[in-house]
Amino acid sequence: MNEAPGRREPADATAVRPPMRDALVGAAFQLFLERGYEETTVDDIVALAGVGRRSFFRYFPSKEDVVFPDHERCLADMTAFLEEEADVQDPVQRVCDAARLVLRMYAENPTFSVQRYRLTKKVPGLRAYELSVVWRYERALAEYLRRRPAGARADTLRADVVAAAVVAAHNNALRSWLRSDGTKDAEAAVDQALGYVQSTFGSAPAEPARTEAEDVVVVVSRRGAPMWRVVQEIESAFARD
Amino acid sequence: MNEAPGRREPADATAVRPPMRDALVGAAFQLFLERGYEETTVDDIVALAGVGRRSFFRYFPSKEDVVFPDHERCLADMTAFLEEEADVQDPVQRVCDAARLVLRMYAENPTFSVQRYRLTKKVPGLRAYELSVVWRYERALAEYLRRRPAGARADTLRADVVAAAVVAAHNNALRSWLRSDGTKDAEAAVDQALGYVQSTFGSAPAEPARTEAEDVVVVVSRRGAPMWRVVQEIESAFARD
Repeated sequence: MNEAPGRREPADATAVRPPMRDALVGAAFQLFLERGYEETTVDDIVALAGVGRRSFFRYFPSKEDVVFPDHERCLADMTAFLEEEADVQDPVQRVCDAARLVLRMYAENPTFSVQRYRLTKKVPGLRAYELSVVWRYERALAEYLRRRPAGARADTLRADVVAAAVVAAHNNALRSWLRSDGTKDAEAAVDQALGYVQSTFGSAPAEPARTEAEDVVVVVSRRGAPMWRVVQEIESAFARD
Repeated sequence: MNEAPGRREPADATAVRPPMRDALVGAAFQLFLERGYEETTVDDIVALAGVGRRSFFRYFPSKEDVVFPDHERCLADMTAFLEEEADVQDPVQRVCDAARLVLRMYAENPTFSVQRYRLTKKVPGLRAYELSVVWRYERALAEYLRRRPAGARADTLRADVVAAAVVAAHNNALRSWLRSDGTKDAEAAVDQALGYVQSTFGSAPAEPARTEAEDVVVVVSRRGAPMWRVVQEIESAFARD
């Protein structure tokens, strides 16, 4: 199920996040929690971290960016993962696995993620920033799906809808984990949420080998049965097979 | 298919949008197009409209809000539509119809909508504003679906995923209409896009009457066929029936 790359080694993480950058994030969050976000200036942050203003702006274009220090790296990781030459059988599973990278970033540091969640809920500007980041993830997934048509229905509409569904399912799991103060099993929550999307939109290999036995599955359904029920039955039939 | 309330009568629209408000929007867009959004101040806008600054801020909390003068009304219309006591057979169709209200707001004024689309693409702050509006529409749809469980699968996950899918499909149709400079048939585009979502998530009446003839549909499918193809076949079978 989970084909996403493994967790980073600590050495790698250190290389990507130099100590001064971490010190700035730590100082910023200490002040945001003590005084509030709006009441904290970049000058306050650099004074506490013991560095100059120019060091701050070397790492972060604005005060908002220090609240979300890992999204740029995560977006780059996601793009690289989607661009990897891989024998992708099911593009929907691939974008689900790409979304798992985002959850893992949050789950790597539960205390920080939960603090930020509370902060973001209180500050409208941060909420807007977060929405723009979510939109960039969604576009990355949609662009990937647009490049990989799966079946005749492949078009920008399906790509956009599937990408939005993946992001919504991921965010549903992420929020439930954040609301548990990071105590729930984040991976289990996201597996369940993305499983729903994959069962709705995912496909078996798009072009099964011609030599494969032409097994058939017969579904008998009462007319008027809700479509989700029919789909569930078909999935069960495939699974039994 | 389309159960959304009809277009407003002109008298009603005038009551909601007084002439001074329209004059401010007109003056603002004239200046945004001539000079650019960032280069235009609220003072410039009120000078051209021939009113005072206080009049501007009576209608619009900020310069950004004048770019999207109808979203608050449309959000209120959507909320009212979703709260109406109605014999709702299929909540997914209901949220699709709610999304049609947004498209209709754009389609009512093609020139203005296309101008704004071009402006929003150029100004990151407006793009962020638009994302926050889209998020509010999506939350309104998700909250409605959370209150109306449809079948055993009803939970916050399904509600969030369906709401996101509806918004993504709507926006796909809206963008294609805006890119055609408002020349395409907007209603046809959104019907096609929302039809895809409804065929994926919508249901026939959840509990068909027991007295209904117990017709059956038999679908024969090769194992390994993509799920969308199977669903499409079932839909065709139901439609033929």
